[in-house]
Amino acid sequence: MPPDSITNPPSADSLELSASEREALGGAALGWVLKYFNEASAPPVYPTVGAAQLSALVDEALPQDAQPVAAVLEQFAMLASFGRNNGHPRMFGYVQSSGSFAGVAADFLTSAFNQNVTSWRSAPSATAVEHQVIDWMKAMSGFDREAGGILLSGGSLANFAALAVALRASTDVDVNQLGVGALPGKPRIYASAMTHMSIPKAAAMLGIGRDAVHLVPVDAEFRMDVGALRTQIASDRAAGHHPVCVVGNAGEVNTGAIDPLHDIAEVCAEQRVWFHIDGSYGGFAARAPRAAPALAAIGRADSLSLDPHKWLFAPLDAGCLLVRDPRHLKRAFTHGAAYVDVIADRDMSEFAFWDHGPELSRRFRALKIWFILKCHGARAITAAIDDNIAVAQTLAAAIDASPDFERLAPVPLSIVCFRYAPARLRGQRDTLNALNRTLMVDVQREGEAYLSNAMIGDDFALRACIVNYRTTAADMRVLLETIRRVAARTA
Amino acid sequence: MPPDSITNPPSADSLELSASEREALGGAALGWVLKYFNEASAPPVYPTVGAAQLSALVDEALPQDAQPVAAVLEQFAMLASFGRNNGHPRMFGYVQSSGSFAGVAADFLTSAFNQNVTSWRSAPSATAVEHQVIDWMKAMSGFDREAGGILLSGGSLANFAALAVALRASTDVDVNQLGVGALPGKPRIYASAMTHMSIPKAAAMLGIGRDAVHLVPVDAEFRMDVGALRTQIASDRAAGHHPVCVVGNAGEVNTGAIDPLHDIAEVCAEQRVWFHIDGSYGGFAARAPRAAPALAAIGRADSLSLDPHKWLFAPLDAGCLLVRDPRHLKRAFTHGAAYVDVIADRDMSEFAFWDHGPELSRRFRALKIWFILKCHGARAITAAIDDNIAVAQTLAAAIDASPDFERLAPVPLSIVCFRYAPARLRGQRDTLNALNRTLMVDVQREGEAYLSNAMIGDDFALRACIVNYRTTAADMRVLLETIRRVAARTA
Repeated sequence: MPPDSITNPPSADSLELSASEREALGGAALGWVLKYFNEASAPPVYPTVGAAQLSALVDEALPQDAQPVAAVLEQFAMLASFGRNNGHPRMFGYVQSSGSFAGVAADFLTSAFNQNVTSWRSAPSATAVEHQVIDWMKAMSGFDREAGGILLSGGSLANFAALAVALRASTDVDVNQLGVGALPGKPRIYASAMTHMSIPKAAAMLGIGRDAVHLVPVDAEFRMDVGALRTQIASDRAAGHHPVCVVGNAGEVNTGAIDPLHDIAEVCAEQRVWFHIDGSYGGFAARAPRAAPALAAIGRADSLSLDPHKWLFAPLDAGCLLVRDPRHLKRAFTHGAAYVDVIADRDMSEFAFWDHGPELSRRFRALKIWFILKCHGARAITAAIDDNIAVAQTLAAAIDASPDFERLAPVPLSIVCFRYAPARLRGQRDTLNALNRTLMVDVQREGEAYLSNAMIGDDFALRACIVNYRTTAADMRVLLETIRRVAARTA
Repeated sequence: MPPDSITNPPSADSLELSASEREALGGAALGWVLKYFNEASAPPVYPTVGAAQLSALVDEALPQDAQPVAAVLEQFAMLASFGRNNGHPRMFGYVQSSGSFAGVAADFLTSAFNQNVTSWRSAPSATAVEHQVIDWMKAMSGFDREAGGILLSGGSLANFAALAVALRASTDVDVNQLGVGALPGKPRIYASAMTHMSIPKAAAMLGIGRDAVHLVPVDAEFRMDVGALRTQIASDRAAGHHPVCVVGNAGEVNTGAIDPLHDIAEVCAEQRVWFHIDGSYGGFAARAPRAAPALAAIGRADSLSLDPHKWLFAPLDAGCLLVRDPRHLKRAFTHGAAYVDVIADRDMSEFAFWDHGPELSRRFRALKIWFILKCHGARAITAAIDDNIAVAQTLAAAIDASPDFERLAPVPLSIVCFRYAPARLRGQRDTLNALNRTLMVDVQREGEAYLSNAMIGDDFALRACIVNYRTTAADMRVLLETIRRVAARTA
């Protein structure tokens, strides 16, 4: 039972809860949070609920009067039981991290502190912490130490901001003033056929259109064909088009493929084209022994997207964009006309984030990252990432050794694409696709594990993404056994 | 002293704090939060600190090893003392709300629950709650009950998304595919000369350029001259240009001016141009008796930006965009080609937010709004808003009755623009500008109150924004006395 002070509605007409009401509500919220973490490994991973049923539970006219805080908390707890348990060690859906308690506690402080991180003047210490965290993001990913950067809500906005920066950097024409119609040629963005949906979406939002995105073919390991890239840029240049940037994948979200970053960097240097790396998923693996060689060229990019709410285990939301030459960040986003005379070493007290990104009001996202890195240390984060990759390799090996499973892609990071494919069905694509689609949903419904999917060419793959420090090799065995059990029931 | 379990570093190489470590860290964080709220009214409003000094306090190489959690918390508490106290009743800077404890507690739950509100399938109950909250946002602002909407990080992104929606709705040409170069004429956006910086910035980001924004002159009360708007649209049409939308202010951030929304709606209907209202600051005042008449036409807009982290007292971040015809929201942001056959009543379980806004990963921002509205009720929120307006009117009246102060703008909402202007300096603009600029900084430094500024024509105004349920008429007296005291010292 919650304490008395929250079983009655707050005093009417005041938004100020009393000290004892705050203590009671805060304590009850903490109680729920501790319980949620204590039960993180308890099934189900995913609830059994229908949309209509859930909408009915939530449906309510705008409350005119105060409700007892304890009742509101109780209703929340009921609704929370119909969430996906993203912290569960067998939540393999999408590239969704487990979060971490240190990050959650810090985010609580952020909400109460309620700084608006628009500029140094409005939020002095939060601005200083964000700058510190940006420096740490560079160190974690192996990016240029002189780079600038900004925290955003996630990879989609980081990629959007990156393309905006690249577009402005691609020309002396003031496209912010004149519009993209003033570009000296048809704008062209080059990305692999596996590129994230946020890239064409960014092109649409930036007014250059999805047609501006040229999808470069990939090799058998889903990595950009750099020869094809070189040829395409050259022929576009010859046609008078206007290359804006190349987007390389440092862990694309279907298979985890890492493009040949070094070779792309060479082409970009030759052709003087901006090189952006989408490292939303894989960027923080740059120091993990199992991934470091493939990610060694990250430092050669002009810009890099990172998602601390993925492999840094920060609670949502936290994305990051790093830009090697910070002047380009300001050039893209500053509203004033004075961007040409940016003084790089101007006193920090003049610094405004709104000159460096699309947002004005900004939550103090940096604090949770600062807390996680201090409370656990970069070494432990890197070890957790490397361990996730090792666990994925364990799954891949188990699949390769199983006659009833088939692996559909290499495992450069911590994503495994595979399917249930007993000998009698091998080679029957349509049947296997239909079967695995059913299996995915049935596994989700069972609540023991959660898988998402990917299309690998024309093959429907079960996709297991491991972005959770709780996940172990034992969970891989449970996953395969669960699929087999569900399959036996289905067949 | 913090409990023993957080004075030692967490166990090496694991990101999983033990149950007792979680309890200790959570309890310590809650302790800080309760203390911060208990001391919300204690000065200083703003810290005395220099940028170099603060950077030195934060400066640290990427931590490789875990640090004791208690030490990290202690460092945070030290840094937090160098923040701006946005909850203080005399924090009058910018349109910055005080936040509220119910919102903070809910946001803590959000961080732990860590749902990724991308779609119903990924976050069933969070999606249901966000839909419910969007319905409440319509009711709070008097917007169309059939509208669609989405939560975003703030007014800047809401305005950006609104212009993206209006741009796509303005033509049958598929500009998402082809780019804005395919528009049938030069795009034109109409906004008052007082419009927020996010409007020209959005035009720049969308690729139509700041040149596309036509600033319509304002009347003596800083409201759009609707006759001038009508003439401009007509002449642009005659010139073959392509009107995209009109942006009306429902509380611009310099003076709080509310454009003649009804008259603008008439022009937009006549000319068949999209009508967007930027209600980031004033939208939630639509039900407050002191502002309701001027805001009655909000429901006639095609889209409306709102900022729950302003006058709904939610902690950062929470912005909102409402769009009367939800199909236009989807048309602007869906990545697939199937937007033409949107099925409005498709089962909720198919719903994806990424089809309706710029973000993919999304924090569960709706929960804090849901909590605030349930724990306090809309009536108390509206009363707090109306009271803020009343307090601002009290300040305006006190200024009007004081021979040493001069008011520089009407007070339609809760912003008061004024200056210190003793009789001997009246009419000496340059002297008054310099004096008030100095006074603003000196008042900030004293820590008893915090003012920002606005340029009203060529006059430098002290700007007091009241967006805080703690602020009373007594604080207005303290403010004026503080300015007088500082002025006496300065002169």
